[in-house]
Amino acid sequence: MIVVVKPNVSDERQNQLIDWLKGMGLGVHISIGEFSTVLGLIGDTTKVDTDLIASLDIVDSVKRVSETFKQCNRKFHPEDSIITIPTAHIKAAENKDGIKIGGGNFAMMAGPCSVESEDQIVNIAKAVKASGANLLRGGAFKPRTSPYDFQGLKAEGIELLKIAREETGLPIVTEIMNLRDLPLFDDVDVLQVGARNMQNFDLLKELGKTNKPILLKRGLANTLKELLMSAEYIMSEGNENVILCERGIRTYSDYTRNTLDLSAVPMLHELSHLPVIVDPSHATGIARLVSPMACAAAACGTDGLIIEVHNDPIHALCDGAQSLRPEDFDVVCKKVQKIREALA
Amino acid sequence: MIVVVKPNVSDERQNQLIDWLKGMGLGVHISIGEFSTVLGLIGDTTKVDTDLIASLDIVDSVKRVSETFKQCNRKFHPEDSIITIPTAHIKAAENKDGIKIGGGNFAMMAGPCSVESEDQIVNIAKAVKASGANLLRGGAFKPRTSPYDFQGLKAEGIELLKIAREETGLPIVTEIMNLRDLPLFDDVDVLQVGARNMQNFDLLKELGKTNKPILLKRGLANTLKELLMSAEYIMSEGNENVILCERGIRTYSDYTRNTLDLSAVPMLHELSHLPVIVDPSHATGIARLVSPMACAAAACGTDGLIIEVHNDPIHALCDGAQSLRPEDFDVVCKKVQKIREALA
Amino acid sequence: MIVVVKPNVSDERQNQLIDWLKGMGLGVHISIGEFSTVLGLIGDTTKVDTDLIASLDIVDSVKRVSETFKQCNRKFHPEDSIITIPTAHIKAAENKDGIKIGGGNFAMMAGPCSVESEDQIVNIAKAVKASGANLLRGGAFKPRTSPYDFQGLKAEGIELLKIAREETGLPIVTEIMNLRDLPLFDDVDVLQVGARNMQNFDLLKELGKTNKPILLKRGLANTLKELLMSAEYIMSEGNENVILCERGIRTYSDYTRNTLDLSAVPMLHELSHLPVIVDPSHATGIARLVSPMACAAAACGTDGLIIEVHNDPIHALCDGAQSLRPEDFDVVCKKVQKIREALA
Amino acid sequence: MIVVVKPNVSDERQNQLIDWLKGMGLGVHISIGEFSTVLGLIGDTTKVDTDLIASLDIVDSVKRVSETFKQCNRKFHPEDSIITIPTAHIKAAENKDGIKIGGGNFAMMAGPCSVESEDQIVNIAKAVKASGANLLRGGAFKPRTSPYDFQGLKAEGIELLKIAREETGLPIVTEIMNLRDLPLFDDVDVLQVGARNMQNFDLLKELGKTNKPILLKRGLANTLKELLMSAEYIMSEGNENVILCERGIRTYSDYTRNTLDLSAVPMLHELSHLPVIVDPSHATGIARLVSPMACAAAACGTDGLIIEVHNDPIHALCDGAQSLRPEDFDVVCKKVQKIREALA
Repeated sequence: MIVVVKPNVSDERQNQLIDWLKGMGLGVHISIGEFSTVLGLIGDTTKVDTDLIASLDIVDSVKRVSETFKQCNRKFHPEDSIITIPTAHIKAAENKDGIKIGGGNFAMMAGPCSVESEDQIVNIAKAVKASGANLLRGGAFKPRTSPYDFQGLKAEGIELLKIAREETGLPIVTEIMNLRDLPLFDDVDVLQVGARNMQNFDLLKELGKTNKPILLKRGLANTLKELLMSAEYIMSEGNENVILCERGIRTYSDYTRNTLDLSAVPMLHELSHLPVIVDPSHATGIARLVSPMACAAAACGTDGLIIEVHNDPIHALCDGAQSLRPEDFDVVCKKVQKIREALA
Repeated sequence: MIVVVKPNVSDERQNQLIDWLKGMGLGVHISIGEFSTVLGLIGDTTKVDTDLIASLDIVDSVKRVSETFKQCNRKFHPEDSIITIPTAHIKAAENKDGIKIGGGNFAMMAGPCSVESEDQIVNIAKAVKASGANLLRGGAFKPRTSPYDFQGLKAEGIELLKIAREETGLPIVTEIMNLRDLPLFDDVDVLQVGARNMQNFDLLKELGKTNKPILLKRGLANTLKELLMSAEYIMSEGNENVILCERGIRTYSDYTRNTLDLSAVPMLHELSHLPVIVDPSHATGIARLVSPMACAAAACGTDGLIIEVHNDPIHALCDGAQSLRPEDFDVVCKKVQKIREALA
Repeated sequence: MIVVVKPNVSDERQNQLIDWLKGMGLGVHISIGEFSTVLGLIGDTTKVDTDLIASLDIVDSVKRVSETFKQCNRKFHPEDSIITIPTAHIKAAENKDGIKIGGGNFAMMAGPCSVESEDQIVNIAKAVKASGANLLRGGAFKPRTSPYDFQGLKAEGIELLKIAREETGLPIVTEIMNLRDLPLFDDVDVLQVGARNMQNFDLLKELGKTNKPILLKRGLANTLKELLMSAEYIMSEGNENVILCERGIRTYSDYTRNTLDLSAVPMLHELSHLPVIVDPSHATGIARLVSPMACAAAACGTDGLIIEVHNDPIHALCDGAQSLRPEDFDVVCKKVQKIREALA
Repeated sequence: MIVVVKPNVSDERQNQLIDWLKGMGLGVHISIGEFSTVLGLIGDTTKVDTDLIASLDIVDSVKRVSETFKQCNRKFHPEDSIITIPTAHIKAAENKDGIKIGGGNFAMMAGPCSVESEDQIVNIAKAVKASGANLLRGGAFKPRTSPYDFQGLKAEGIELLKIAREETGLPIVTEIMNLRDLPLFDDVDVLQVGARNMQNFDLLKELGKTNKPILLKRGLANTLKELLMSAEYIMSEGNENVILCERGIRTYSDYTRNTLDLSAVPMLHELSHLPVIVDPSHATGIARLVSPMACAAAACGTDGLIIEVHNDPIHALCDGAQSLRPEDFDVVCKKVQKIREALA
């Protein structure tokens, strides 16, 4: 950590600061420049409050040199993490070794925004599997801006997902909204943490105590470092199976629901060893943009995609605007496959 | 709700759409323009999915005419709501009729970011009361970006707040982070929902089942309508005691932690009857900006302020950078008072 | 245009509004709903001030139905525009028919941020041509945030670009910063309008009076409609040779210089018939992100790329951070080519 | 300037970097930490390209310690600048000593968005003067997003402003859009640079060669440092009469046209000695928010306000939505005055 002292500070006050820093067990290197003095702090600075030091009237600015995220940091784990989603418990699974994500293994998650009925989810599951999806996604608990909107089939939705899993062999991905519901997710394969809950730290800690793969979506206006710190909350409790997901950020730009920040994909790969997937459906909110954005994500190295597919978007209970029909999804899968082959 | 149909759509397809809308129980007024046809939907459109209709290939755009928030909407409740925080149970309270907020009643909430010790919280409580604060705030459960940072004294912190309440008579305000902790807040006077939890809908619903005053902070990148929909989550469960709080939004601008959006104060007053307070400490993250921003908030009509005060900011366990010392807080209180008098 | 009148407005005041609108030569369709009355305006509404109407105290909101951009609008020009950059005047040009952009024709523009010397620009021009670039870019006039930074070689830089053009046959692209300099650009092939000048309307109008191809970059925080309105400024003066460029927008996200908004590519293609290219160098500001973002842009349908290449990035006078070396650019060209073939 | 070297870099490569830095005439202090080495650069670093150094593969990050703005920096000019707008040439001026802004002197600029006719501008000028305005603002050249919108009366508008000046004695403020028009502004008292031109560097340099007071508006998405660097462009050419103006920034928030960033006022006062004024009309775009935001600006220390006033907002040719009627402006002036007195 580096502390820049303001010009014209008395030696006495500067020495008080240095003594206080040393009192925290830190080494302090002093470098005197023309306009200011720079203190280099050496030792374990993870618990030092940079904002506090920056607030001192004799301090100009403070900068962290080493990141505060450790377990998800590529510096300490140079190889890509490969997350395995177990399939041994799924009777219909073709491959009992599990589905792998990361390190060259591509995950294609597809399904409806909301689970609506057994027929609906089973039919979509069969369709997306036929096109190449290897995971089934579907919402049972739905976070909605309005209390008056459909909130999902909840526990019943999870049961319907399991039926679809048995029909197709596809492991299931669904969102958990609060820690009280955790027992209902015992038999779910991948637990999704939505954008609005990315900093629901108590939920993250509880998920860290399980060994379930967690799909962690970036919050609406969160930085990459905050996303990695949220992954760190899960990992610091012992669960290393975290999949990061870029799903669009909120900006001034208003023609899409969110702004898909695709450079996050190579940048997260540089900062962390965790797999990174992309959600072009929520990012854009517009079905006809899903295909070009899925292709773009594949071209910049995503480890997977999560795409909304509905057999009857016009009647979907939520988010029909961004759902593809199965035949459109099939085209997307083929294009993504071609791009992955072209870059292999 | 208004639906604009694209130009050159066949009568047949347009009629299908109209029939489908009528099938939902809506009346449809048709207005044929030069470039497009406009459908005016009449009836209860609260459950109509605007995104879904917008996604139809024959539709150009959709616009809601009536807001989806009802209970917090000033249209249906023209007078200011006045929230009363009971004080009858506080032995040391000078006035047992409760503290009122809104409709001309001003709340000054002050205290440390984190409760650290009995001495600390009692001393600060006495100091801020002497300066004119009528509520004591202090963090017991602390949401922190990093799992390695101090997370608050938790249940013990709440006990220390109660001691400070008994010493000063000030009701206490503190943050709840998840619904599992609710029993610990039985004896807390105002429950705060932090910015990161503004859309933790399950938590909001649980709080809606209590009759506690709820201080609802605007999320990092949430619109005013989303804030009001979150208030609606609480109110739709029966609890009408909601206080809104502007605390800065995330923008590209980087010299303050967040960008304080003060025009939200008069705009929320126009949209809703609920009281609106301002948090200049979190908004700016810089102690020396708290005074000018508190004054500005008072000048544009805030119903209250929530300000971080610490007797020893340099040693505060968190957020020292934005804490005022008691003597500085005293100056802020005097200035705010003068502005309120000048505009009375 | 649609005007939503507030509930409970007297007939008299509503009729005044309707008469006033009719006085502007507009037809008015009236649609009476449960909560509000909706007026559909028919006729030429391009000169109606929506903000003004929205400001009336009896009006709830106003919505435009037809876009205000006309000449660049795909509705009135369904086929892709193909812009031709003439090459007949370039002795060394291999093909005298010109370089085409749009409608399936791909432009690869490459070169240094700043022209520094004859050797530099000629060597880079040869290198990028060998890798497949068909246009040479280089800055002669440089917009710099600080008045103390290098501002470009100016007129001399243009002369050096012409020498490189004669050596390689590549047409040249360079930025114009103000209308007074226009005579210096007489012999330049493509005139670039930088992000900071996207709404320098007097400059746009002057460029509209030429017949030069104009590369119009999206401003730092401009919407797609504002970008299209700026294209309209050029086209309304008679110059239809406009190439749009997405180059990153300013958001709260801080790990890249800007946030590359790639869904702008398919969306601009939907709204307009003009070609759309992408600048991954300025968008990210980081050389190692240029390759993945160039690939992503190709995968979502860009009509071209503009990429910074420098033979000696470490000594470049500006923006070395985002420049590729020629050998890295060669790899990017090959990858982009593969993706374009895969999707062909 | 501080350069943080990545961990595990060989001594040889690190020494190459150090030698290269020394070759630029800089002193280099080396501080070796646990995870990284920090280089403190000493000497004139204003011309060092931080992005370039940051791009080196052995460098983790770079941080400037001293600001690159000099002439507008409070560090080198601790007292408030007071800008004087001469009035000796105005026959009707009551005080020939000029209008002062800054250092406790408050400027109230008011007038219509666009000058429309002699009657209009003279009547408004008289009205705003009666309420306490000491400068008359009015647009002659109007930057409009659409080429089809009214672009101002141009030279004729300036002549009408001069007539109003002679009728009232109020100096005039009006916007210049490009350097070619400069001769038309010879007799204008304050030249305004609009938000869209904040980084039109050639225009800024030309204005720096005059001795006119310049009202420099913050760009739509510019940082405070960029605003100060633009002031620096003017000052570095010799003109020190720069007035800064906060007028709202573009954010995701959509209920006001822009988001008024009032904490910029105290922060700019801390960074710079130049006066800072606020434009609540453009910031909000809503007439009924002008009064609360003008009061808030006064409460946080603005040196002045610029407010749109129109005697007939409903018929105003542009921006009627945000214009106050003279009687409303009168109320604003009284409130602002009371707040200034309360805080004096």
